[in-house]
Amino acid sequence: MKEILFHKVVIIGVGLIGGSLALDLRRAGVVGEFVGVGRSPENLQRALQLGVIDRATSDAAAAVEGADLVVLATPVGQMAAVLRLIVPHLSPAAIVTDAGSTKRDVAEILTQFLPDSLERCVPAHPIAGSDLSGAAAARFGLFADKNVILSPFSTTLAENVAKIAKMWQITGARVQTMTPQAHDAIFSAVSHLPHVLAFAYVGSLLSREDLAACLALAGSGFRDFSRIAASHPEMWRDIALANRAHLLADIAVFRQQLERIESALAAEDATQLNDMFAAARDLRAPWQAP
Amino acid sequence: MKEILFHKVVIIGVGLIGGSLALDLRRAGVVGEFVGVGRSPENLQRALQLGVIDRATSDAAAAVEGADLVVLATPVGQMAAVLRLIVPHLSPAAIVTDAGSTKRDVAEILTQFLPDSLERCVPAHPIAGSDLSGAAAARFGLFADKNVILSPFSTTLAENVAKIAKMWQITGARVQTMTPQAHDAIFSAVSHLPHVLAFAYVGSLLSREDLAACLALAGSGFRDFSRIAASHPEMWRDIALANRAHLLADIAVFRQQLERIESALAAEDATQLNDMFAAARDLRAPWQAP
Repeated sequence: MKEILFHKVVIIGVGLIGGSLALDLRRAGVVGEFVGVGRSPENLQRALQLGVIDRATSDAAAAVEGADLVVLATPVGQMAAVLRLIVPHLSPAAIVTDAGSTKRDVAEILTQFLPDSLERCVPAHPIAGSDLSGAAAARFGLFADKNVILSPFSTTLAENVAKIAKMWQITGARVQTMTPQAHDAIFSAVSHLPHVLAFAYVGSLLSREDLAACLALAGSGFRDFSRIAASHPEMWRDIALANRAHLLADIAVFRQQLERIESALAAEDATQLNDMFAAARDLRAPWQAP
Repeated sequence: MKEILFHKVVIIGVGLIGGSLALDLRRAGVVGEFVGVGRSPENLQRALQLGVIDRATSDAAAAVEGADLVVLATPVGQMAAVLRLIVPHLSPAAIVTDAGSTKRDVAEILTQFLPDSLERCVPAHPIAGSDLSGAAAARFGLFADKNVILSPFSTTLAENVAKIAKMWQITGARVQTMTPQAHDAIFSAVSHLPHVLAFAYVGSLLSREDLAACLALAGSGFRDFSRIAASHPEMWRDIALANRAHLLADIAVFRQQLERIESALAAEDATQLNDMFAAARDLRAPWQAP
């Protein structure tokens, strides 16, 4: 007999991440029932059709009654509003976790809304983003061999951390724990900054007179470099704002690097350009996706 | 019987582009003999082993004797030195083409070294770059459904343009013609700028104390955004310098866009961030690689 990990899981925000998590846990047979909560009836309908969730509602407060796990899988900027609605209705036994791309702000929000219940709060970040979004993007195996970061509070009960770790391990993910601060510094560098630069790059093309010819002739470099500029604007606005201190610092370092390239170009300093490009190549070429 | 397009083709720089071109033309049976010229004996040896070329030499001057096609497939910065060596030995019937990523500088170099022979010069740019380089990266079908730009001189003979167009069509490429100026403006925007930004981004990570953790946790966004920072530093140094006027202008526009994002972040202007990200997303999301 399969061990039931949670009897009633409420997924608030049934998109790529929340939906894919539900698919994997359902297939593993470790959850009794999935209830999906969202703002878009079309998206919830799609999630029902795809078998991602058993029930759908726009009423987060009613949904969480009796749940033993609540997954906040909305953009980070909506989490405070969601918590305000659901906190009075949470079962005292419910574990609350999230899938947000920033962890310091989530920790602050949970501290604000559940100050006496942090022992059952397990902030988490599955590293499985995509430029795709919505329930239609959910798929089995999204988290296989991906990293999931847990940033529990010092007061979070170890058994609750272990339960959320086990949940993610069932999806095939590798789980590790770090502080919200360390998490946010790292992901500013390897995720949030690239997204901002990709948005800025594509934005810089908008006013070109030869834009149509540019798009007709762009090759694989453009394709890969700009892919993340197709990401969800609202989600990335929230992430950028939530992690703005790290991000602004990292943008400043990037700008210095870009200005050094500009100076070398203007001075036709071939050696300096070669050295800078080679140093970047030496870091990136041997890198393998973890 | 197959039509022989060229009897003796000399490829100067047997790397990804020159090597892949040779493979496709050989399979099509439209070339008598391929001679590879390069600086690295190891790379030439590899090209011989892989069946990319029939003969190899480091002596460009001797190699071009009797050739009816010479393909300059070196980094753009080496083309002047190569032409200086080979011009006295070129057959009067030899067509000279190239595979450089910039076209205005190639046109200038050809005008300098072959001022009375521009009727047989056909500057070209196959849009099939990669972060891979060297003869070992050569492969069949690299150019299938890719774009190739020809930037002939006003005095280039139409039959010579047609012959180079036919050569590229044999590889499965789509061929179109534009001025060197239009070419360089477009490729600054969709290729050279992304490469410079990717090099600058990866370079901006080098001094981080948490670099190892960053690289261990970077996901698919990092993978794709930074891929072109693994490109050949010398080749991209040459391209950046050759196209520096367009590139500096495009970097300036990019920097304005980035500074607008920085200001919005600092001011916590969610609307402005959302609008900028959404405008970029609306351009990039529907884009399909041509």
